[in-house]
Amino acid sequence: MYMKHVLLTVVFLGIACVAMAHELLSPNGNLKLNVVLDSEGVPVYSLYYKGETVVEPSALGILMEEADLSNGFRILDATNSTFDETWMPVWGEYEKVRNHYNELTVTLSQPAKHDRTMIVRFRLFDDGLGFRYELPEQKTMNYLTVKDELTEFNLTGNHTLYCIPGDYDTNEFAYTTAAVSEVREAMERNLRKKGYEAKATSFTVQTPLMIKTTEGLYINIHEAALVDYSAMLLNVDDKEFNFSAHLTPDKLGKKGYLQLPLHTPWRTIMVSDDARNILASQLILNLNEPCKLEDTSWIKPQKFIGVWWEMFTGGGGTWAYSDYYKAKPGITDYSKLTPNGHHPANTEHVREYIDFAAENGIDAVLVEGWNEGWEDWASYRKDRQFLFDKPYPDFDVAALHAYAKSKGVKIIMHHETAANAADYERQLDVAFQFMVDNGYNSVKTGYVGSIIPRSEYHSSQWMNNHYIHVVKRAADYKIMVDSHEAVRPTGLCRTWPNWVAQESARGGEFESMGGNDPDHTCILPFTRLKGGPMDYTPGIFQTKLSYYNGSKPKGQAGTTLVKQLALYVTMPSPLQMAADLPDNYRRFPDAFQFIKDVAVDWSNSWYLEAEPGDYITVARQAKGKQEWYIGAITDEHPRTATIPFSFLPEGRKYVVTVYADGRDADWKDNPQSYDIRRGIVTSKSVLRQPLASSGGVAISVREATKEEVKGLKKL
Amino acid sequence: MYMKHVLLTVVFLGIACVAMAHELLSPNGNLKLNVVLDSEGVPVYSLYYKGETVVEPSALGILMEEADLSNGFRILDATNSTFDETWMPVWGEYEKVRNHYNELTVTLSQPAKHDRTMIVRFRLFDDGLGFRYELPEQKTMNYLTVKDELTEFNLTGNHTLYCIPGDYDTNEFAYTTAAVSEVREAMERNLRKKGYEAKATSFTVQTPLMIKTTEGLYINIHEAALVDYSAMLLNVDDKEFNFSAHLTPDKLGKKGYLQLPLHTPWRTIMVSDDARNILASQLILNLNEPCKLEDTSWIKPQKFIGVWWEMFTGGGGTWAYSDYYKAKPGITDYSKLTPNGHHPANTEHVREYIDFAAENGIDAVLVEGWNEGWEDWASYRKDRQFLFDKPYPDFDVAALHAYAKSKGVKIIMHHETAANAADYERQLDVAFQFMVDNGYNSVKTGYVGSIIPRSEYHSSQWMNNHYIHVVKRAADYKIMVDSHEAVRPTGLCRTWPNWVAQESARGGEFESMGGNDPDHTCILPFTRLKGGPMDYTPGIFQTKLSYYNGSKPKGQAGTTLVKQLALYVTMPSPLQMAADLPDNYRRFPDAFQFIKDVAVDWSNSWYLEAEPGDYITVARQAKGKQEWYIGAITDEHPRTATIPFSFLPEGRKYVVTVYADGRDADWKDNPQSYDIRRGIVTSKSVLRQPLASSGGVAISVREATKEEVKGLKKL
Repeated sequence: MYMKHVLLTVVFLGIACVAMAHELLSPNGNLKLNVVLDSEGVPVYSLYYKGETVVEPSALGILMEEADLSNGFRILDATNSTFDETWMPVWGEYEKVRNHYNELTVTLSQPAKHDRTMIVRFRLFDDGLGFRYELPEQKTMNYLTVKDELTEFNLTGNHTLYCIPGDYDTNEFAYTTAAVSEVREAMERNLRKKGYEAKATSFTVQTPLMIKTTEGLYINIHEAALVDYSAMLLNVDDKEFNFSAHLTPDKLGKKGYLQLPLHTPWRTIMVSDDARNILASQLILNLNEPCKLEDTSWIKPQKFIGVWWEMFTGGGGTWAYSDYYKAKPGITDYSKLTPNGHHPANTEHVREYIDFAAENGIDAVLVEGWNEGWEDWASYRKDRQFLFDKPYPDFDVAALHAYAKSKGVKIIMHHETAANAADYERQLDVAFQFMVDNGYNSVKTGYVGSIIPRSEYHSSQWMNNHYIHVVKRAADYKIMVDSHEAVRPTGLCRTWPNWVAQESARGGEFESMGGNDPDHTCILPFTRLKGGPMDYTPGIFQTKLSYYNGSKPKGQAGTTLVKQLALYVTMPSPLQMAADLPDNYRRFPDAFQFIKDVAVDWSNSWYLEAEPGDYITVARQAKGKQEWYIGAITDEHPRTATIPFSFLPEGRKYVVTVYADGRDADWKDNPQSYDIRRGIVTSKSVLRQPLASSGGVAISVREATKEEVKGLKKL
Repeated sequence: MYMKHVLLTVVFLGIACVAMAHELLSPNGNLKLNVVLDSEGVPVYSLYYKGETVVEPSALGILMEEADLSNGFRILDATNSTFDETWMPVWGEYEKVRNHYNELTVTLSQPAKHDRTMIVRFRLFDDGLGFRYELPEQKTMNYLTVKDELTEFNLTGNHTLYCIPGDYDTNEFAYTTAAVSEVREAMERNLRKKGYEAKATSFTVQTPLMIKTTEGLYINIHEAALVDYSAMLLNVDDKEFNFSAHLTPDKLGKKGYLQLPLHTPWRTIMVSDDARNILASQLILNLNEPCKLEDTSWIKPQKFIGVWWEMFTGGGGTWAYSDYYKAKPGITDYSKLTPNGHHPANTEHVREYIDFAAENGIDAVLVEGWNEGWEDWASYRKDRQFLFDKPYPDFDVAALHAYAKSKGVKIIMHHETAANAADYERQLDVAFQFMVDNGYNSVKTGYVGSIIPRSEYHSSQWMNNHYIHVVKRAADYKIMVDSHEAVRPTGLCRTWPNWVAQESARGGEFESMGGNDPDHTCILPFTRLKGGPMDYTPGIFQTKLSYYNGSKPKGQAGTTLVKQLALYVTMPSPLQMAADLPDNYRRFPDAFQFIKDVAVDWSNSWYLEAEPGDYITVARQAKGKQEWYIGAITDEHPRTATIPFSFLPEGRKYVVTVYADGRDADWKDNPQSYDIRRGIVTSKSVLRQPLASSGGVAISVREATKEEVKGLKKL
C-alpha cells in the first residue's frame, strides 16, 4: 500500500517539477488525469472530476517473479492522442455506441535493469478512465510469472461501498452497503455462505465495485477485457480508504503466467456526479476489442422459459431421473435406474413447455436435468460427472427436436459441468456437435462446485481462458452461450457476441434459497451488469414459495409481482427468462402480457432516475421498432417515479400500458396486487407513478391508432 | 514402516492361532502366500518360494482422509478359487498366453467403524503374486481421498537392486545396480538430471524394480492396470531392507480422489530362481482387463524410420522451421517466419524418407517438427504451444499423403504437447480428425516438460487418466498410440491394444545426450518392459556421433553395431524404429538386411539365457510364419552366448544368417566391426557365439531350400 507521507512528497514533486507531470483531459474536460514518477521511480497516477480529487496519487506496477516492474523507472516517452468512433453492437442497450477518448501512452524504462520497458496506456473518456500495462517484446524479458499486481486506487474519504466479499470462486453474495470503515463488519454479517467459496486471503471486495463518495460523486471500479489474466479483487485498507489490486491466484499461489508481448486487462474507474451516467456508461464495452466473429447473423436475442423453477420450488422436481442416490452411495449404475416419477425433464412435460412457449411467443425452452449424471455429480471428486450427449431414458432428444421445430420453438441445451472444466473440454466437440445435430443453438453452462483442474479457482487465469475457449469453440458451431458460475464479465461480449449472458452474481434463483434483498436489483445494474448482461431469471409471479426441495420453511421473493416485470427493462439482457412456472403465468395472463411483449434488444436507452441501492427508472426503445418499454424499481422504500416521455418522437400520440403496483401492494404482505391501465401520451407527457415497497412499474409504449386516440384518455 | 518387533509378534500369532492364517499356493506349489491379522487388526501378508521367504510379514492398508483402512480389521470371509484360461493377444511375444492362478479373497471389516469393509484380492501365479484392494459399495463410505497407501514389501536381506530414482515426472534415468544399503549413494552418483524432474519427497525408487536376492532369487515389484489411481514408487528403508508404497501426489499433496465401488491397481511381485522366467512372465498382462476394443483389425505392428535422428546428431537439423526464436524472445509470429534452411521436416526431404522406406519394406515414416509451435514451446508457461492441424509452410500434408499412399508407406503423426495435457485434450478431436482426413493411423505423443493442468505430475492420477483418455479416443478414430514421457506402462496395452508402445524410460535418444551404459539394455527387459513395449529406437549404426545440435563434444552409443541389431529381438515391441539416418543404413546394407527382415510380432518366444544387467539371449518365432529371430546381448563384458536351436521344429533343416560382432569388435573402439555368415542348422544344433564388449548377435532363421542345404555348410 502506497503510504500517505510518500504521497505528499509526490504531490510536492508534482508541483516542483511540472515538466515531470503528464496530464490528460477527457474530451469534455470534466475528468483530468495526472501521471508522475515519484522519487523512487514509481509511476503514480491521480484522477480529478470537475476539479475535485477522485483518486489520490496511486502507485502503478506489477511484481513479477522474474522482474520487479514497480519502481526504478524513468519516463522514456509520453504521447497524447485522441480517438472517436461510433460502432454498432450486435445486440445491447444502444444501437450505436460512441467510443470517444483521449489517450496518454507513457513509456517507462528501468535504467538499472537493462532498460526493461513497460508501457502504461491511459484512456480518458467523459465517463471514466481505463488504463492497462503493456510489456512490448524486449531482449531481457520473455516468460513472466505474476507475483502481485500493485495497482492502487487511493480514494479520498470514508465513502459508501456497494459491495460483495472477495472470493476466488463465487460472486453469488448478497450486497452490503456501508462506509469503507464499516464495510468489513457489515459484510461479515451479511455473508451467505456457499459450499465452494474460496475466500480471498486478505480483506477484499469484488469488482465491479460501486462507490458513492462523501461528496456525492459516483465511482465504479472494475476491469475490461479480462483475457489470459486472473480476475482482480480489491484489497481494502479501511483506515486509509485505499484500495489495491488483488489478483486471483491459482492454488499453487501463482497469479498468472505471461509471455511478452502482452497487455493486462484494462483497469477502469467510472466517475460521475449523476448516478444515471454510471448506468448509461459503455466504457467497459468500449475498452474491449471489436467483434471477432465475421458472421453474427445467427446470434439472436431471445426470451425463454425453462424446466427449472419447479426443481427449486416445492413440488419435489429433481434434476435426477431417479432417487437412486438417496438409497445408497457409490458410483451410479445408469443402466439400472428406476424413474422417480418426479423428473420434470421428460418428453411429455417438455412438450407442454414447448406448447406454452409457442402459444405465448416465447422463443425457447431451457431444459435442465436432461442428461445422465445428476444422481452422482459431486464436484472435485470425480474425473467425469456428466456426459453431454447422453439423455436420460425419458428425454427423447429426436422427438423433442422435431416437436419444437414444428412449433417454431428452440430448446436451450444445459451443460452442467460440476466445475469439471477439464472434462468439459474433453467432451466439448462431441457436445457441440450433438447440439447441432439436434437443432440446439444455445447452451446454458454451469460450473457449480470446486474446479478441476484442481490447481484452479473459478476466477484464476486458466479458467478465464477456459470460458473464452468455450465461447469461441461454440461460435465455430454457431452456438450462443449463457455461462453460470463463471468469472464475472468484463465486456468480452463485445468481442464474442455469442456470449449472450452470464450469471456470475446472486440471481433470481436465490429467491428460493434465502431470498434477495429489496435493494438487490437496485445495485446489480451498478455493479455486476457493468461487465455485461446477466441471466438473472426474472418474472417470478408467485413470489411466496417453498424452498428448494420443499423440505425447508416457505420463502418469498423480495419484490412485488410488478417489480419482477420491471426487471425485464432495468436488467437488460439479450437472453431473458420468464422464470416462473407456466401455471403461474396462466393465473395472471394480463400481467404476463408485458413479458410476452417486452423486447430483449434495444435501439436506445434513457436512464431517467437512478440512485444505487435505492431506485432505477429507465426507458428503452425496442431495436428497429416504434415500441418503447419502461421499467422503474425501488428498494424497500415506496417512492414515486417521475417519467417524462420526452424520449418519444415529438408530435405523435402514443398508447401506453402501465403495469403498476396496486395501491395496497407491498412486497411482503401483498405482492400480487397490481393494476393495469392504458392511456395516451405525447413526448411532452410526464407520468408520476407511485411504487410500492420493493415495487416497480413496467410500461409498454407504442404509436396509438386513431381508434385508440379516440377511445383512450390521456394517461 | 512395519516394525520388525511387531512382525515377530505377528509371526508368533501366526503360529499360536493357526486358524487365523490364510494360505494360498500357486498352481505348481512353488509359491506360497500367507495372510494374517496382527494384534492391531492390521492385515499382513508374507510370500515364500520353494520354502524360502521372499517377503517377510508386510502390512496392507490404505489411509484415506475420510477413513483409516489400515487397522482394526477382522476377517469376515476368506475364499479360495482357481482360474485357468488361455487368451490371444492382438500382438505380443506369444500368440497365446496362459492366465492361470489360484485366488484368495479376504474380506475384512472394521467393527469399530460401522463395519467398513475392504477386500484384499490375491492372485498367486507360478511366476508371482498380484494383489489389490477393493472397496465395495457401502453405506458409510463414498468419496475418498487417498492420504497414503501403506502396502509394504519387506524383503529378507541386503539384496541387489536394479533401479532408477523415484520421481513424479520422469523415468528417463540411467540404472543403478547396487545392494539396498548402498543404492542411495550409488544412485546419487549415477543421477542424470532432467529439467522437469520432480524428485519424490523421500528416498524412493521406481517400479518395475528388479531385485536379485543374496540367495540368488529374482524378484520384480511393479503394478498392473494403473487406472484412475496414481503411480506407485517405493519408499526404501535401506537399514531394514523394507520397501513400501509411495503414491505420486498431485501438487496439492493429494494422492488420489476415489469413489466406491473401487479397486486399486494390482501390486505385483514376480519371483523365480531363474532370471529367464522374469523375462518370460506375462503376469502383468494377465492382471489387466481383456481387450475392450471390438474391432482390432486396424491395429498393425510396424517398423518405421523417422525424420528425427538428424535433429539429435550433428547436422543442425531443427524441429523448428525458422531460427526466429534465437533472434528474439517473445510470442512467435508464425505468419512472419523465415525458413532456416535446416528444417528436415520439409516435403522434399520427407519424400526421400518415404522412398527409402518403400525401397526397404519399412512400413512407416515418423515426421517430427511438422507443425507450428517449435519456435516457442516452453512448457508450463503457455496456455497453448502447438496446434495439431497446422503444418509449417514447407510441409505439404496433402501432397505427402498422396505420395506416401502411392508408395504403400504410412506417415506417423507426431503430437508433442509440451506437457500441456489440458490443451491437448482441447484439441484432441480436431487433431485426430485431421489425422484421419490425411491418412495417418499412428501417433507418437510427447509430454516434455512440466504438466498443465498445473496441479499434476506426469504420474499423478489425473494424468494417468489422461493417457488412457487419449488412447481410448484414438481408438474411436482407429489410431495407434506411442506415448513418450507418459507414466510407465502397467500392461494396459492388453486392454487397449492400440496403445502399441510407450517410451517412459531412458531410450536410444540418450545415446546422443550422454549415452546409455552397456548394461542399460540388459536391465530394461527386466524392468521397464515388464509393463509393456518400449519405443526404444534401436538401430543406431553410426554409433560415434555428435551431441545434440552439434554444439557439444562428440558422443557415442554404448553398444556395437551388432548389439543394435540384437535389440530388435531383446526389446520386443509391435512398433520398432530403425532410428539411424538412411545414409548410415546405405553404408551397411548387409547389416541393415536384418532390420528389414526382423519381425515385430511373435508366435512364440524362448528366453535362452538371462541375467539382469549382464546378458539376455532370446529366440522368437515371427507371428504366423516359419521364421525365427534370435537376439543376444551382453554388457561391457564379452561373453559367449550359447544358443540351442531346440525351439525349431524337429526333422527339418534351416538356414540361419548370423550377424555377429567382428572378432576385433569393441563397443568403444571398433563398434562397426561385424561379420555375417550363413549356415544350416537343425533343432539339435547348438551355436556358441562370442559377443564383444557391449556386443551382441542377431540371427535370422528360416527353412532352407534344397539349394541352400546343398550349398551351405553346417553352422
